[in-house]
Amino acid sequence: MTVFDEATAIRPAGPGRYEVTLDERFAIVAQGGATPPAVNGGVMVAMVLRAVLDTSPHPHPVATSAHFLRVARLETAEVEVTWLKQGQTAATARATLIQDGQAVLDTTVTTGRLPAGPAAGGELSWTGEPPHLPPIEECVDLGHWPGTVGPSGTRGYAAHVDLRLDPATTGWRRGNPAGVPEMRGYFRLLENRDPDAYLLALAVDALPPVVFGLGAAGWAPTVELTWHMRAVPAPGPLRVAARCRHVSGGWFDEEAEVWDAAGRLVAQSRQIARVGRSSRSTARS
Amino acid sequence: MTVFDEATAIRPAGPGRYEVTLDERFAIVAQGGATPPAVNGGVMVAMVLRAVLDTSPHPHPVATSAHFLRVARLETAEVEVTWLKQGQTAATARATLIQDGQAVLDTTVTTGRLPAGPAAGGELSWTGEPPHLPPIEECVDLGHWPGTVGPSGTRGYAAHVDLRLDPATTGWRRGNPAGVPEMRGYFRLLENRDPDAYLLALAVDALPPVVFGLGAAGWAPTVELTWHMRAVPAPGPLRVAARCRHVSGGWFDEEAEVWDAAGRLVAQSRQIARVGRSSRSTARS
Repeated sequence: MTVFDEATAIRPAGPGRYEVTLDERFAIVAQGGATPPAVNGGVMVAMVLRAVLDTSPHPHPVATSAHFLRVARLETAEVEVTWLKQGQTAATARATLIQDGQAVLDTTVTTGRLPAGPAAGGELSWTGEPPHLPPIEECVDLGHWPGTVGPSGTRGYAAHVDLRLDPATTGWRRGNPAGVPEMRGYFRLLENRDPDAYLLALAVDALPPVVFGLGAAGWAPTVELTWHMRAVPAPGPLRVAARCRHVSGGWFDEEAEVWDAAGRLVAQSRQIARVGRSSRSTARS
Repeated sequence: MTVFDEATAIRPAGPGRYEVTLDERFAIVAQGGATPPAVNGGVMVAMVLRAVLDTSPHPHPVATSAHFLRVARLETAEVEVTWLKQGQTAATARATLIQDGQAVLDTTVTTGRLPAGPAAGGELSWTGEPPHLPPIEECVDLGHWPGTVGPSGTRGYAAHVDLRLDPATTGWRRGNPAGVPEMRGYFRLLENRDPDAYLLALAVDALPPVVFGLGAAGWAPTVELTWHMRAVPAPGPLRVAARCRHVSGGWFDEEAEVWDAAGRLVAQSRQIARVGRSSRSTARS
C-alpha cells in the first residue's frame, strides 16, 4: 500500500461514519512555523470520497463540491456520510470531515458512471484543445519546494509527489514571475501507483498557486473547490494545466484541467482561494 | 417589485426556515408536455441565496455549490439554512430546498465581501481577456424560444428575460449548429431591474445549453452547478459567455462567465449536466 493510500484510508465506525487520520506525510508545512502544518486539501477530499464511494450505488465521483472551513489538526477525525438521493443515473451524498465536533471540510458529492474507453457509436462526444506542455524531460522538477517539507526534509506533501513544471511557469522561483497566473506540469506520486478518482482529487490542487505567476507568495488557502471527474484515467503521469481569470479583493479563482497519459480530459476543477500574505512563506493548502 | 423578485421571495417560517413558492412564471415548459414544468435552476438558487444572506455576517455569496436532486413541483417549498462556520473573512452555510420532506436542491454557500469598485492601491488585481461579442443590435433576440413558454404564450422563463445571442452561436435554431459548444449573448430581465447577486445566479445558467451547438436538443438537466460571484455588478445588461470542454457518456460541462456593463468579470460558473435526449423538446432546467 502506498503512502497516499495509507494517508487516505478510512476505517468504518458505524453506519455512515468513518474514522480517518490526518497524516503528516501529506501535510503542507509553512516555513518559519507561521501557520500550523495542514494536510493538503486534495488528500482530505480523497479520504472523504473513499467514505462516499463505500456506500455509493455508482462507481465515480462525477461532481465534488468542497468548502474548507477550518484547518484540521494532524490527528484523527471522522467522516459522516448522509445520502440525499440515490437515483439510477446519479446519487448525491453530503459528507463532512469533523474534528472535535466541528466541521473542518464540508462536501457534497454526486456519483455516477463515467466512460472508461472511447465513446460508444452514436453517442455525442466532443473535447476541447488539450494544454500544450513541453516534453517532461524539459520540465523543472520542483523537488522539495519551500514550504512543503518540514525541517527534517523527509515529511510532507512535496516528499511524496513528482511534479515537473513547464519552465514558462516557474519564473517565480527565481523572483521573476511570468506576469501571468498560469501553472502547467506533469504530476504523479513518487511511488508507483496508477491514477484513479482519489489521485485525481489530489491532482486538481497539486500545483503551486497560480497567483505565484503574478508575484504573490505565501500560503493561499482554498475556500471552496469543486471538481468533476470526466473519465477513468489511463495509467501513467497526469498533465495538469491551471489558470486564473480574476484576482481582486484578496480572492482569486484557479481552474485546473487534468489530462491522462492517453490524452483524455479526466478531471476539471475550479477553486476560489485567498491571496497569500507575502509575509508568510511559500506554501499552499 | 419585479416578477423575478416576487418569484424568488422568501417568507420567514421559524429559525433558519423560510417558505418559498416555485413560480410558474419562471418555469421551463417542455413542448408536448413530455416533462412536467420545472422552475429554472437559477431562480431556485436565487431564492436559496436570499435565505442564506438573510442571516449571513457577510454581504456576498462568494461560492455557491448547488446539487440538483429532484424536479420541484410548482407549489410551495421550504428552505432550511444551517450555518457551519461564521468567520471574519468567510462564512459557510448549508441550505436545502425541501418539498414533501425531500431535498430538491442541496446547496453549500460561502459568503464574504467583494469589491464594488476599482482595486485598492497595492492590492493584487488581475483579469483575463473579456469575451468578444458583437454589438447588441447585431445579436439575435431569442424571444419566446421553443420549450420555455407554455401553450398560453405568456408564462415561463422566456417571457421574462431579454436574451440577445451572438449570431455565430445560433445556427442550431435553423438546424445548422456551429459544431462548437459555445453560447454568447446579452442578458437582462425584461423588467427594468439592476443586476445583483440574485440576478447573477440566474445569469450563469441563462443561455440555451452549449451542446445545442453540437446538434444536441432536448431538456439538458443540470446535475450540479457551482458559481462564484467576483464583484458587485454595475447597472446595465450583462454579457454572458459559455463554453464546454468535454462531452462523453451523456455528461457535459458548461462554464459561463458573466461580465457587467462596466466591463468587469462579475461571476463565473461551471455546471455538469446530462445531454438531452433529442426525442424530447428543446428546453432546459
